[in-house]
Amino acid sequence: MKPTSETRLRVRYAETDRMGVVYYANYLVWMEVGRVELCKALGFNYRDMENQDGILLAVAESYCRYRAPAQFDDEVIVKTWLDDANSRLAVFAYEMRLAESGKVLATGHTRHVFVNTRMERTRLPQKYHPLFGL
Amino acid sequence: MKPTSETRLRVRYAETDRMGVVYYANYLVWMEVGRVELCKALGFNYRDMENQDGILLAVAESYCRYRAPAQFDDEVIVKTWLDDANSRLAVFAYEMRLAESGKVLATGHTRHVFVNTRMERTRLPQKYHPLFGL
Amino acid sequence: MKPTSETRLRVRYAETDRMGVVYYANYLVWMEVGRVELCKALGFNYRDMENQDGILLAVAESYCRYRAPAQFDDEVIVKTWLDDANSRLAVFAYEMRLAESGKVLATGHTRHVFVNTRMERTRLPQKYHPLFGL
Amino acid sequence: MKPTSETRLRVRYAETDRMGVVYYANYLVWMEVGRVELCKALGFNYRDMENQDGILLAVAESYCRYRAPAQFDDEVIVKTWLDDANSRLAVFAYEMRLAESGKVLATGHTRHVFVNTRMERTRLPQKYHPLFGL
Repeated sequence: MKPTSETRLRVRYAETDRMGVVYYANYLVWMEVGRVELCKALGFNYRDMENQDGILLAVAESYCRYRAPAQFDDEVIVKTWLDDANSRLAVFAYEMRLAESGKVLATGHTRHVFVNTRMERTRLPQKYHPLFGL
Repeated sequence: MKPTSETRLRVRYAETDRMGVVYYANYLVWMEVGRVELCKALGFNYRDMENQDGILLAVAESYCRYRAPAQFDDEVIVKTWLDDANSRLAVFAYEMRLAESGKVLATGHTRHVFVNTRMERTRLPQKYHPLFGL
Repeated sequence: MKPTSETRLRVRYAETDRMGVVYYANYLVWMEVGRVELCKALGFNYRDMENQDGILLAVAESYCRYRAPAQFDDEVIVKTWLDDANSRLAVFAYEMRLAESGKVLATGHTRHVFVNTRMERTRLPQKYHPLFGL
Repeated sequence: MKPTSETRLRVRYAETDRMGVVYYANYLVWMEVGRVELCKALGFNYRDMENQDGILLAVAESYCRYRAPAQFDDEVIVKTWLDDANSRLAVFAYEMRLAESGKVLATGHTRHVFVNTRMERTRLPQKYHPLFGL
């Protein structure tokens, strides 16, 4: 079974636009929030991986399917799981839904490649392999 | 041949992150900049379509493929074109590249449905049909 | 004694910039988070005040003093209190500090005027007076 | 006479909020755009100062007075000037107005201290003194 995390956030006024709902790019920010939380659930801090090991997750692809609009002050649950991984790349998948009704707001995924601090592609160090299910 | 627009923007400090490059969600903001510019090239202001006709382009899907990182103060060209359209939906496609070298930074598309101010799906009014090639 | 609220948030990657720390405009977003939370502590939802009574808090002035930089993944406590209010305006004050060490990151205030949905200045309705200490 | 620069930008949909106008934190982003442009007018690239000399302008204080709301797709002129400077700090001042009518949207200032890449306070190198009027 795939390791999964759920984290909650509340929609900020800053995240809405003149349409009265959340601006579409902000769902990618919420995916990042979910991703960081999943790393903690997997047993490591993404910040430490960057700071101590110099391994970064550069984004190669993002996809989001918008199903229902989120409103200011809504509580949103971001469900995140590791969909695929090898020593070169990782794919995270997401489902965002309203905490109150369970209504799905958006689904999507992001594909990442491991890079070093010079932004060159690299392999995930051995010590992280079990955490990524390798 | 598909109507195309090109618009230029300069990377803001605000758009970078601690990785030293542009944060991935901001490419979707640049797509919006390109989309608004394409509407002008097609012969109308998106703002007027919203304000005067109550027709909004709700985003249904976004996709971005990140090819090379953009840096603070880089000049970026956002090329935008209408990839598909009918009276219910419109698909815009994008290519973002560095003005100086022509290096492609990212490509992607967004799919939109026409909605009214109550966020209900609607048909594009006749007067806009020629502008969308219908 | 002034009513005060404290709310916690975790620094997002999106909020950092190439300097490696939180971009300065984002502290104003955190102030908004604190403000919304203070409204709840005072006994009302800011969203309801906008949606049901058509009363909005338009920002007239913002001030922020940056004391120490916040880093990605830091937990931040936003302390917010109502510093001044009458039927025409409200002033909120803020202190943002690290949850772990208590180190103060920033302090500031925002001044707001009550406006209606046409953005015209108005008076705070009687029912809200006690909540604002009037 | 103080060196001044003017730069133009167009309000993005992303910069608006559910109030239908520009979200207040975004004026600080526009100040950054003006600041970077002023550096160019003064004879240097802020990016080069960071990359080549390791000198950064850390923000110590921001102040903004909001006078009239900006709308999506408005063209805005950001006027920026160096209000004060010595080898330790620099103060920039800003006026933002509508290109079409000249209506003033906001005014403000930011105070900065020179820091090195370890975020420690430092003195502005001699070569930059003339550019800052020292």
